[in-house]
Amino acid sequence: MEKKRVRLVVAYDGTNYHGWQVQNNGVTIESELNRALSELFQEEIQVIGASRTDSGVHALGNVAVFDTGSRMPAEKVSYALNQRLPEDIRIQCSEEVAADWHPRYCESRKTYEYRIYRGQFPLPTKRLYSLFSYHSFDVEKMQEAAAYLVGEHDFKSFCQVGAQVQSTVRTLYQAEVEEQGEDLVIRVCGNGFLYNMVRIIAGTLMEVGQGKRKPEDMLSIIEAKDRAAAGPTAPAHGLTLMKYEYR
Amino acid sequence: MEKKRVRLVVAYDGTNYHGWQVQNNGVTIESELNRALSELFQEEIQVIGASRTDSGVHALGNVAVFDTGSRMPAEKVSYALNQRLPEDIRIQCSEEVAADWHPRYCESRKTYEYRIYRGQFPLPTKRLYSLFSYHSFDVEKMQEAAAYLVGEHDFKSFCQVGAQVQSTVRTLYQAEVEEQGEDLVIRVCGNGFLYNMVRIIAGTLMEVGQGKRKPEDMLSIIEAKDRAAAGPTAPAHGLTLMKYEYR
Repeated sequence: MEKKRVRLVVAYDGTNYHGWQVQNNGVTIESELNRALSELFQEEIQVIGASRTDSGVHALGNVAVFDTGSRMPAEKVSYALNQRLPEDIRIQCSEEVAADWHPRYCESRKTYEYRIYRGQFPLPTKRLYSLFSYHSFDVEKMQEAAAYLVGEHDFKSFCQVGAQVQSTVRTLYQAEVEEQGEDLVIRVCGNGFLYNMVRIIAGTLMEVGQGKRKPEDMLSIIEAKDRAAAGPTAPAHGLTLMKYEYR
Repeated sequence: MEKKRVRLVVAYDGTNYHGWQVQNNGVTIESELNRALSELFQEEIQVIGASRTDSGVHALGNVAVFDTGSRMPAEKVSYALNQRLPEDIRIQCSEEVAADWHPRYCESRKTYEYRIYRGQFPLPTKRLYSLFSYHSFDVEKMQEAAAYLVGEHDFKSFCQVGAQVQSTVRTLYQAEVEEQGEDLVIRVCGNGFLYNMVRIIAGTLMEVGQGKRKPEDMLSIIEAKDRAAAGPTAPAHGLTLMKYEYR
């Protein structure tokens, strides 16, 4: 039976999941997709995901592929699959792709946003999707600091210790800090991200915003190639994978 | 012992509550406030709320008052109370008011927003605070229809049958429909609202937006003074009490 490869754009609220990747304990986005797809097509299906987001991280547009012998038109999969998924996971698009298209081995750009809510008190309706902070931030200094990150760099200082990667060199196309009312949004776009990289960038830029570091310190942090040189890892729930673009 | 009256501005995510008002079964915003305040001050405290919002409705700025003999400065109550509240209820402000100030018997303006997310598929991170609709809406027609509601009218057609009220006359200062990207926001501001009034307005305007009714039908709906003349009651979770202003 000939199989076809189907690409899914997957949105989720990460609050109630142990991240993307299948684990022995705990429900994950990947395990829910595998379960729902296997039920739908009555065959064992395992997806391959683009970004293996951490526990608590959200996504508007993560990407996954799977292979199936089913004759269901790829475009219809989104509708059928959403019926079998919990309401905090929703397929946004499904389409057929080349049988060898792999979401991690292709030229791509990922855009993440880290959202901070700067109020006097936490706001319940924002608590799941942004980090509350009562600090005041010097946004211009944060923007200045973010600009140092743009380009091709060895981001080892922004990678969790112990992560297994061949190379810690990545290219950032965009790194900016934007005020949206009482929200502060850190937006980064790059060809790939190391483990916890966006959250370490966010934690470091927040220290710049609070005056604990200077914008130009970003240079020596990058040069250090040492996780200890950068700031803390910001909490997961402020982070959202906004989109994943590919050729 | 002399008592003072303290006013609270209360924000909450209504998802997990059976509305504002104390009930025999189910946890409510009011019951959580009473519990936390009674624990904090070691005396039995019952709040008086401004808007008794329904199950599932959210608020950024509902208002409540309570009386206490405690010497704690009123401005400090917000901090102390937030420590004892669940994270989906947060006091935004606390201050002393006149002993006879009552949040329902004072000149005031309430602003509500009803939010609709118009996507091809539901977006998990928006599901708790907006109504998903795959319909397309004629926003101009909705705006035109909303304009008929502004002013002093008998809103009996927009009041749930069986609600006990002396008068169904209310004044709307503002009724508008705004596009915010893929969201559609219905915003109403008035001196008071009948039971389910905003949700019935939202349900009726959505029918106008879908071409099921004409904007000018609002006139005959208002004149009918009959709940059956208006559209359906839109689901609770799209509704947020934005602010409550008073003299």
